This record gives sequence, structure tokens and C-alpha cells, in this order.
Amino acid sequence: MALLSDLGTEIVIPVCAVIGIIFSLVQWFFVSSVKVSVDRSGDAVVKNGKNGCADHLIEEEEAINDHNVVAKCAEIQNAISEGATSFLFTEYQYVGIFMVAFAILIFLFLGSVEGFSTSFRPCTYDQEKLCKPALATAIFSTVSFLLGAITSVVSGFLGMKIATYANARTTLEARKGVGKAFIVAFRSGAVMGFLLAANGLLVLYITINLFKIYYGDDWEGLFEAITGYGLGGSSMALFGRVGGGIYTKAADVGADLVGKVERNIPEDDPRNPAVIADNVGDNVGDIAGMGSDLFGSYAEASCAALVVASISSFGIAHDFTGMCYPLLISSMGILVCLITTLFATDFFEIKAVKEIEPALKKQLIISTIFMTVGIAIVTWTCLPSSFTIFNFGVQKDVKNWQLFLCVCVGLWAGLIIGFVTEYYTSNAYSPVQDVADSCRTGAATNVIFGLALGYKSVIIPIFAIAVSIFVSFTFAAMYGIAVAALGMLSTIATGLAIDAYGPISDNAGGIAEMAGMSHRIRERTDALDAAGNTTAAIGKGFAIGSAALVSLALFGAFVSRAGISSVDVLTPKVFIGLLVGAMLPYWFSAMTMKSVGSAALKMVEEVRRQFNTIPGLMEGLAKPDYATCVKISTDASIKEMIPPGALVMLTPLIVGTFFGVETLSGVLAGSLVSGVQIAISASNTGGAWDNAKKYIEAGASEHAQTLGPKGSEPHKAAVIGDTIGDPLKDTSGPSLNILIKLMAVESLVFAPFFATHGGLLFKLF
Amino acid sequence: MALLSDLGTEIVIPVCAVIGIIFSLVQWFFVSSVKVSVDRSGDAVVKNGKNGCADHLIEEEEAINDHNVVAKCAEIQNAISEGATSFLFTEYQYVGIFMVAFAILIFLFLGSVEGFSTSFRPCTYDQEKLCKPALATAIFSTVSFLLGAITSVVSGFLGMKIATYANARTTLEARKGVGKAFIVAFRSGAVMGFLLAANGLLVLYITINLFKIYYGDDWEGLFEAITGYGLGGSSMALFGRVGGGIYTKAADVGADLVGKVERNIPEDDPRNPAVIADNVGDNVGDIAGMGSDLFGSYAEASCAALVVASISSFGIAHDFTGMCYPLLISSMGILVCLITTLFATDFFEIKAVKEIEPALKKQLIISTIFMTVGIAIVTWTCLPSSFTIFNFGVQKDVKNWQLFLCVCVGLWAGLIIGFVTEYYTSNAYSPVQDVADSCRTGAATNVIFGLALGYKSVIIPIFAIAVSIFVSFTFAAMYGIAVAALGMLSTIATGLAIDAYGPISDNAGGIAEMAGMSHRIRERTDALDAAGNTTAAIGKGFAIGSAALVSLALFGAFVSRAGISSVDVLTPKVFIGLLVGAMLPYWFSAMTMKSVGSAALKMVEEVRRQFNTIPGLMEGLAKPDYATCVKISTDASIKEMIPPGALVMLTPLIVGTFFGVETLSGVLAGSLVSGVQIAISASNTGGAWDNAKKYIEAGASEHAQTLGPKGSEPHKAAVIGDTIGDPLKDTSGPSLNILIKLMAVESLVFAPFFATHGGLLFKLF
Repeated sequence: MALLSDLGTEIVIPVCAVIGIIFSLVQWFFVSSVKVSVDRSGDAVVKNGKNGCADHLIEEEEAINDHNVVAKCAEIQNAISEGATSFLFTEYQYVGIFMVAFAILIFLFLGSVEGFSTSFRPCTYDQEKLCKPALATAIFSTVSFLLGAITSVVSGFLGMKIATYANARTTLEARKGVGKAFIVAFRSGAVMGFLLAANGLLVLYITINLFKIYYGDDWEGLFEAITGYGLGGSSMALFGRVGGGIYTKAADVGADLVGKVERNIPEDDPRNPAVIADNVGDNVGDIAGMGSDLFGSYAEASCAALVVASISSFGIAHDFTGMCYPLLISSMGILVCLITTLFATDFFEIKAVKEIEPALKKQLIISTIFMTVGIAIVTWTCLPSSFTIFNFGVQKDVKNWQLFLCVCVGLWAGLIIGFVTEYYTSNAYSPVQDVADSCRTGAATNVIFGLALGYKSVIIPIFAIAVSIFVSFTFAAMYGIAVAALGMLSTIATGLAIDAYGPISDNAGGIAEMAGMSHRIRERTDALDAAGNTTAAIGKGFAIGSAALVSLALFGAFVSRAGISSVDVLTPKVFIGLLVGAMLPYWFSAMTMKSVGSAALKMVEEVRRQFNTIPGLMEGLAKPDYATCVKISTDASIKEMIPPGALVMLTPLIVGTFFGVETLSGVLAGSLVSGVQIAISASNTGGAWDNAKKYIEAGASEHAQTLGPKGSEPHKAAVIGDTIGDPLKDTSGPSLNILIKLMAVESLVFAPFFATHGGLLFKLF
Repeated sequence: MALLSDLGTEIVIPVCAVIGIIFSLVQWFFVSSVKVSVDRSGDAVVKNGKNGCADHLIEEEEAINDHNVVAKCAEIQNAISEGATSFLFTEYQYVGIFMVAFAILIFLFLGSVEGFSTSFRPCTYDQEKLCKPALATAIFSTVSFLLGAITSVVSGFLGMKIATYANARTTLEARKGVGKAFIVAFRSGAVMGFLLAANGLLVLYITINLFKIYYGDDWEGLFEAITGYGLGGSSMALFGRVGGGIYTKAADVGADLVGKVERNIPEDDPRNPAVIADNVGDNVGDIAGMGSDLFGSYAEASCAALVVASISSFGIAHDFTGMCYPLLISSMGILVCLITTLFATDFFEIKAVKEIEPALKKQLIISTIFMTVGIAIVTWTCLPSSFTIFNFGVQKDVKNWQLFLCVCVGLWAGLIIGFVTEYYTSNAYSPVQDVADSCRTGAATNVIFGLALGYKSVIIPIFAIAVSIFVSFTFAAMYGIAVAALGMLSTIATGLAIDAYGPISDNAGGIAEMAGMSHRIRERTDALDAAGNTTAAIGKGFAIGSAALVSLALFGAFVSRAGISSVDVLTPKVFIGLLVGAMLPYWFSAMTMKSVGSAALKMVEEVRRQFNTIPGLMEGLAKPDYATCVKISTDASIKEMIPPGALVMLTPLIVGTFFGVETLSGVLAGSLVSGVQIAISASNTGGAWDNAKKYIEAGASEHAQTLGPKGSEPHKAAVIGDTIGDPLKDTSGPSLNILIKLMAVESLVFAPFFATHGGLLFKLF
């Protein structure tokens, strides 16, 4: 039927994954060629006066061969890396307990569906066939849950390790020029992006093949069990995002409130006791959290697509290549991103500051264009020209060009969302400049304009998502939505690369400041960082857009699996679900924002205490006690991530068990449509405030100069806005992605249980 | 069947309405006995040295017989009243044009349903009967639309007149003691409350009876035409709320930013050029806007209930009393509120400041308890013990006790929402105190905590609304929801009275300040105002809660009338509607907040200009140019109310015409579930910031004293929060009620057109 044989598929997928991993190792090798280690004799590794770098230095800094600077960078890098590692280990201990407990829960709930019977049962969608027992699904779901969770944890951890490995190297390279520094930061981002994308694909592929040994051609059972992989990935992402988000913002807000506002010392000043915690936070929140999050999206989108494919003509006709279409799209994505990366690192060279942002933007455009071709290749080689897709009880005819359009619409919607986000958060355009201008009349108008900007920035992304949903839903029902999500995520390696680039540059700037390097270095890293702010916002836009599609796909898969054929708003059960579901993102945001606020207050008190009690600290004569601040952030985030985590994890269980699948459907739909809006507006508002502040600080235009300089009244107002935006853009906003995805995938995994034993409350009355 | 005969119903309803009007006139008479006019000889009317008051003065102010003070109060009152009148007239001119244009649109759209045919057609729900032609519905809908619009405008205008009539009188009475001042302010609120409730009922009742002359016993046609009344009421309310909201907050924010923050002069200081505009704003925004809004809710809830009743057994059996059940509930409400009011004005006397808030709270509790009895009386005298209700195509059996519970659940949910709102916005409880405490670390933490508080305050109200919906939906389908909304609104007279009381006291304080009265008078009016802040938040809670129920009821009526039997989230048409609908409140809020921001910036510039260019202004030697500020607010609000107004009015028309009724259903459901959350959180966040500031200023507790006094750093942070909260709580938040209601009622009115000619886009492709 298709050009690519099943055997070909079995070969192509792992080969692409391995290519991705090799490519990321190559990138890592290039990064590691920049040396920060100090050799045994106490000198930095300096060869031929070129500081471990084979080519000549483009620009020489005064102290470029100063061993002290390199040693200091190494020391700071170590402190950050140790702080991040120790936090992640602490986090993983707690999360590990949860993981085991939840794995048991999955086994018990799913096992109890058929009363732990080991006998075969008729398949759900094809009653004439016998499928593997529910107990098998329980066991394999539990295993795939654990696998997903571990992969997610490993992804986040590796990302953090790479980022902390790269930050000081970026600082040192910044001495040679902005282009060199950019390459190091970008390559490090690429290491993370490719490792994550390839690793996620490989583990999923291996798992499917191992499970197939037991399941044989019971595709339905196989892919139902695989959904646990998505749940595992996403539940770890939840804790990563929330815990990391609280950690980073407690430190950031606390450091800023005392350092910048009260003591009037610059950002990342080594005298500030919270500065190490702040830099650690960037790595555990923005890197590890984001990595887990996008890995989760990717795993869930694949699972949702695979589940629907298994009960469609692919599964019925045992067309393995057709079923693996989602994985083949991701494989193609790795190859496309590989070529795209070369455009940034090898084909062109960054020579000036103003080339950075366009170079990153070009990455998005190039990858999208190439991927469109890639999708066409995969579609016409792997799919039969016509097939049927399961659509809530009936099979729907789909042509291969329709499915091609489904994937493309998701891919291009992602690009649109990216550009809109850039427009609303980059200080090159009028929205952010207006916000900066409103700082003239103080912090209040800044906040009003910033909130209004965030609300407004929701409009076009929502229309883009709505169009993708409409097109893909109409063409191929829930399968269409799932592959649209995969289309948006197909360039995940590039997305992650430019995303991770931001915090790495941010850290590089921090290290330059702390190591006491000249302000020229700091200016270069600041330029890298400003571009990173915008790309971070774009990354969040992608994450939210894909989360919306993914959760809708999961929602559809849940509804199919729970055996509901319609979710009618005009029934009280569904409507109250919808209303309460729309409330959940608010409840969740209230928790996370309050957590950041309280943790920041504690941090403020500690920083104040150190400034007041450590003699000589302000003068730079004494060293602050960084460790206490790290501990405050760690303790606060571990403690505070539990209530929001519990809200997200328990809601589907409680609603499903007590109110049944109809109400749960309402809750999922409600939280999806409401959560997307808050997530987008929160991250864009925060991004806009951050860049409005940077706009005033940089003073690049005449308009900006009338507002500045640093320390002016408008600048103070802008700093207040930036501080408010921190928890919005880095804690509550991005965590909401996971809220909507996770509730959907959890419902999907537990669907058989809810369908059999759920709705206790209505059964009683 | 029922105890009350049809003739009895025909008598009871108008009698109750007339009693309400007479009662409000009596209250007005009491208020008018306080004289502020200066007689021809230039002296204030002073009889026997008692300043026009028959009883002796409780406390004598130094200058109590000072003609100058009275004359000054009269002058300021005049300025406020003139400003408000002139603004409303300007607004009504623009709105009048819209009204005529929209009336023509209604006629054309509805007339075109059957191609302007004058022939009779089979009824929608009873195909064997002949109903009046669609053209008749078009004509009568247009007429009732105009009637509703005019009633709404008159309600708002009268409310404003009463409020501006009462403010100076409250100030003057404050010289005699806080109790006297409270009575005047409260009675004035009652005048407005009763006038609105009774007037709305009477006009609706007369319209029904006049239409009946043509329609005879074609109840379906009659009540379909009556829905125009709700649309008219609500569309005027939209412009009132949005226009008034922008007006008041532009002036307020502008006045505060320069006066309090830059010039360090107190609120309402006569030297501030924006002070008159600020006081005018209270009357056009909080009084006229709120009046129109609640009148709209009331009219729409009644229309929704009547439409469903007409196609239920009441209509089929021509049971006029049964059909008029919604109106009878409102009639009973007037009587209950009448008795409740006496508790505040006659049965008990306020002697101290701390008795004010409990007295107002008691009003809510007393009216709710009495109303529960009242509902029981109405239910058991007017309804047969069992009847059937139309439920999306089928008739559903309902017992009278079930309907009693439906009304009660709405009534009591209102009380719960009121109390939760009080808990989150009154500075007597820990949430606001926590927010105040966070001001220690500056404005940023204040904003973070305030936003988190608003998000959190959504939880219980949403559960309360969800429970009411579930109970009333389960018992009596959409009719249950409609009567639950009416239950919540049945005590509207009391609700409006305590609501209007707030801005009146606020104005009274402003007048005291501007007339240069002693600070003791100001302290008394401030105490009245502080209680008013909380009750205003409660009023907004009621408005939002009832709006949610009302729009659901209207949504149900729309779906019935459009002939859809299910709104399935699992269809792309509905889902994209849901997603885009959930986005609309954000779009709308972005517009209104930006409008307030820009108008405030203009105001700031003008106020600064006056301070800089008018010599002697700061010293109080020269008078500022109040008129220019009034003009800025007027122009800005008229200009800025058009885009958000257009968004709300055009969305249902565009979606219905191009995408059809399914997508429109999705949009309505989406905007409902998302809008409620933003509305509640926005008004509570704003209320909490306002009262956190008042908490620090009053310094009543030890904790508060550590944060104060006025001018301290925490106080400055609190002022920033208060300013941000202004547009949230008085512009965008309360306007969202109208957004969700208005889109639903508009869809209902245009339903026949959409059902016949809608969905052009899908028909084309």
C-alpha cells in the first residue's frame, strides 16, 4: 500500500533517533573545546596564549589571559551547577515517592476494571476479536508510566547539565566577540534540543517494540498501554515546571526587590546573596522545566495519535508503517532540524549584535519550510492514498493529502503563534514600546497597559489554533488534531535549541558580572540575552499552542476510550464540568503566584538580613552566604509545588470517580479553553514587561532615551512591572500548559476505570 | 389549578409595582427634607436654627449654621449634577443613533426570516396550530427592544439624578452624626432600587398586556417578541457600563496619579482639576451603569423564563398565572425588600461607625430569609402542583416544590457569593490584610498577591453557581436556570439600595473635602464609604452571579428557538466556537483597560498642565479649570466605548450569519464560562487593593499601624495597587457581565434568522 515497508519503518525510526543523538554529541564536543578548567599547577589551560582556542582571538580583552578570571568563572559555574544538581536531586526524591505511589494507583485502578481478571476479553472497538486482559493493560500502563517519567526526568536533568556546562564557556567566548559567544550558546541549546527529541523518540520506539512482543497484533491494547508514557512524561513535567518555576522566581524576585530596588546594585551583582540562587533557578526552571514540558507534549501527542491510529484502518489492517506515521513525522523532524541548525552554526556567521535576533527567527522559518517538504515526503511514502480513521464510534474516510494538510496546518499555526508572540514581546515593535512609554506616569499605568497587552496578544494565536483545529478536525477527526499537534512539535529540536539559548545567555551574563569582567563583556552577553527573552516568549507560545492541540487530541482519545459519543453542553452534568473546569486555571494560578510571592518575601528577608548583619558586604569586602538563599528557594519550591500538583493530579481522579465521565469531559474542555487564554496572556504580559524594562535600559532609540536612564522614575516603574511579570511568565503561565495536558492524559489513562466504576455520586442519588 | 386566578395575577403584579414606586417616592420625600438650596435672600434655608431639620442636632459642628458651607455644598452638588447630566445626554445622543440603527437591523433580520410575508405560519413547537407571521415578531421585537432600551436609559438616568440629589444632603447630615448621614445615603439608594425594580416590572407587565391584544393566546409569538425588551435593556447597559466605566476611571486614575502621587495632595482636594470629573464619574459609572446593568439582568431573566414558560404546559394550557410566575416572584421581591428596608431605616438606628457594615450585611440576610418565605407563598399559590416544562424538544415533568427549590438555590447562591466577596474584599479579614502586608516589599508583591487573591476568590462563587445550575437544570431544565436567576435577582431593590449607597457616600466625602468642611465630617463620610466599598464588591458579585445564570438561561432559550437539540463539544464547529468564545472576554478587557489607560494619560497631562500653568493653584488661590477635565473624560469615554461595544454587538451577528448556530452556541458557552471567572477575579482584585489601601490609611489595628501612615513606602505601594485595580473593578470586570448576557440575548432575538439564513460560510464550502 505505502512505499515504505514495515521493515523500512522499523529501520528508519531508530536510525533517525540515533542520528539526532550523534549530532547532539558532536555539538557537545564543539562546546567542550572551550576550556574553563584550571589545571593542576593552578593555571588556566592556556595554549599558545590563545586560551584553549585554536583560532586567534577576534578581540582582546584587557585581562584575557588573566588566570583569575577563568578560575573565577569556573568557580561560579561550579556553584551554579552544584546548586542546580542538588535541587534537582532533592526534587526527584520527592517526585520519586510520588512516582511510585502513582504507579501503584494506576495499577490498582486499571487492574480493578475487570476485577484483576487474567482472562481475555472482547476488544472495545471490534467485539468479535479477543483482546489482552485488562490486567495486562494495567501492568504495561504502569511500566510505560514509569518509563515516561524517567525519560522526562533524564531529559530535564541532562538539559540542566548541558546548560550549566555551557554558561561559563559562553562568558569566556564573549571575550572574543559576540559571534563566538552566540555559537557556543546556540550549540549548547542544540545539544539539549536534539538529545531530548531523539531520546524521546527512541525510548518510545523501543517501548512499542518491547510491548509488541507480548501484545502481538492487539494494537488497541498495545497503544492503550503506551498512553502511560505520556502521563509519566507530563506528570514529571508538572513538578519540574511548578517546582522549578517557584524556585527561579522566588530567587529572582527576592534578589531584585532588595538588590535593584532597595540597595540600587546591578542585577547579578556578586554582593547580592540571592544571586547564585537566581542563576541556579534559570537552569532548573527555564531549562529543566521547559525540557520536561515539551518532552511531555511530544510524548502525549504521539500517544494520542497512536491510540486513535490503532483503532482506525491502520490498526485493523495491521499497517505498521501507517500506524507509525506520527513517529515517522518526528523522525523527519530531527533530520530537518539538523539541517536547520547548520544554517545558524556553519552556513552563516553572526558578526554583529543586531544579527542575533534575525538569525534565531530565521531558524524558525527555515525549519518550518523544510519541514513542510519533509511532511510531504513522509505522507506520500508512508501512507496509503486513502484510509479510514476512527471518529467517535464511526470510521471516517481520509485521503493522504488531507492528513498532509492536518500536519501542515499545525506546523504553520506554530509559526504564526511564534511571530505574534514576538510582535507582542519584542521591544522592536510598538506594543512593548507603548508599555514602556506608559511608565512615564508610574508603575500603575505600566501594569494596566501590560495586562491589556497580554489580553490582546491572545486574539491571533487563538484564531490560529481555532483554524488548525477546524481544518484538522474536519479532515481527520481527533487523529487530525493529534497529528496537527505533532506538526507543531515536529521542529521541537530547533525550538528547544533557541529556547535553551536564552537562559544560557542569561547565566553567561550573570557569570560575567560575578567574575568581575569588564562591562564590554556584559554588554555582549546582555545583547545575547535580550534576543533570548523574545525567543523564550516564542518558545512559550509554541508550548502553549501545542499543549492546546495535544490536550484536545487527548480529550478526544479519552472520550473514545470512555465510550461517550457526544459531550453535550446542554446537559447539567457537562455544563457544570465546563464551568468548574474553566475555573481550575485560576485556582492553579492563585496557588503558584501566591507561592512565588511568599517564597520571595522569605528571600527578601534573608537578603536584607545578610546586608544588615554581614559587615563589609555592601563594600564587597565580605562574601555573602549564598547557600542559605539556595536553601530557601529549594525548601519553598519543594513545599509549595505539592498543593498545585495535587490539584492537577487529583481533579480528574475525583471528578471521574464521583461525577463520571460526562462531567470530566466538561472539566477537560473547560480547563482547556480557559487555560490557553490565561497561559498566553500571562507569558506575553510578563515578556513585554521584561523587554519594556530592557528597552528603557538599553536606550537605543530617541524615545527610549527620554524614558531612561537606569534609575530614572520610568525605569523604576518598569522594574516593578518586570517583577510582577516574573511569576506570570515563568511560573503560572507555562505551568498551565501542563495543567491542561496532564488532566487530559490522566483522564485518558484512567478512562476504562471511570467508564466502569465512575460517577459514584450520581449512582448513589 | 392554582389558588391565584388569572384575574388576581392581572391585579397583583401592577399593584406590587405601584407600591414599589410609591415607597420609593416616600423615601425620596424623606431625603428631600434635608435642604441644600440657598433661598432668594442668599441665606441657606435655616428654620429655628436647625438647618431645615425638625429634630435637634446631635452634634454641632463649629460652622453648622455657616451659610457659606451650605451654599458651597449646593454649588458643588450642582457642578456634579450638571456634569453627570451633560455626560449622560451626550452619551444618549450617540447611543440613540445606535438604538435606531439596531432597531432597523432587528426589523430587517427578523422580517427577512419568512421574506416579510404577512401570512400565518405553523407554530414552531406545536406544528398543528397557526401562529402569527414572522413579520409581526419582527415588528413587536423592534418595539419591545426600543421599550427596553428606553426603560434602561430612564433607569440609569433617574438613578444618577437621585444620587446627585442625595450626595450633598448626606454631607450636610454628616454634621449631625454618622447615623443621620447613613439614613440619608441609604434612603437615596432605596429610592433608586425600588424605582428601578418597580419600573422594570411595570413596563414589562404593561408591554405584555398590550402585545396580548394582538397576539391573543399565541403565547409563543408574544413572548418571543418580548425578548426584545431584554436585548434593549442590556444593550443600553453595555454602553452605560463601558462608557461610564471609562469615564469614571479615566478621571479617578488621572486625578490620583497627579494629585496623590506627584503633588501629594489628598483625594478630592478642590485644587485638583480632575476632582469634579472624578465625582461625576461615580454617578455615571457606578450608579447609572450599575442601574442599567441590573435592570438588564432582570429584564433578560424574566424574558428567558417567559419564553420557556410559553412553550411549556403553562402556555399550552393557557395558564396565565403560571406563565407569569417569574413576574410574581419579582412582585413578591418588591414587597420583601420594602419590609427589609424598614429594618435599616426605621426599626433600628445606627449610632456608631462600626454598626454600618453589619447593618448593610443584615439587609442581605433579612431579605434572603424573608424572600425564601415569599417564594414559597408565590409557588404554592400560583403554580399547579405538577406541570411540564419544555426541555430541548421534550416536555419534562416538574413538581411545584422542585421549582421552589430552583428559585431558592439561586437566591441563596447569591447570598453565598455576597459573603465570599465580602470575605475577600473587606479589610476585616485576612486576605486583604495579607495583601496590605505584602506592600512592605513594594508595589510588585502587592500586585502579585492581589492578582492571586482575585484568582482564588473565584473558587467558591463558581462552585455556588455550579451547584445552582446543577440543581435547577436537573429539576426544571432551562426554566429552572431562568427562575434561579430571578431568585438571585428577586431582592434586587435591596441589592441596588446598598449598592447605590456606596457612590453616594463616596461623593458625600468628596463634597465635604471640596467645601472645606472639618476633618471630622470627612472621617464620618469616609467610614460610610469604607462600608460602601465592600457592599459595592458584593453588588458586583451579585451582578456577575446573576449574569452567569441569566446568560445560561438565555443560551438555553436560544438553543431551543434555533432548533438545536444538542451542543456537542466533539464537533469542530462547536469546539472552535468554545475556544474563540473563551477568548472574547480577554479581547474585550484588553480594549476597555487600554481605553482607561489612554484616557487617564490624557487626563494626567491636562492636570499636570493646569498645575504648571495656572499660577496660585497649588496654594489654593486660583480655581482650576474643572470643565476641561470633564470634557476629556466625556470625549474619551464616548470615543472609546465604540470598539468594545461593537465587539459585543457584532460577534453574535457575524458568527451566527457566517458560521451558523452551532458555532454561535459554542461562542456563547465559551464566553460564559471564561467571562465569569475574569469578571469575578477582576472585581475582587480591585476591591481588595482598594480596601488594602484604606486599611493602611485607617490604621485601626496594630498591624495596620506598622504599615502606615499615609505617605509611607507601604502606603505608596498600596496606592499603586489601588490605581491598577480601578479599571479592573469598575470598568472591565463589571462590563463582562454585560458581554456574556448581551451576546446571549442578542442570539436569542436573532435565533430565527440564524436558524434560517445563518452559516453562510459552511454553506458555501
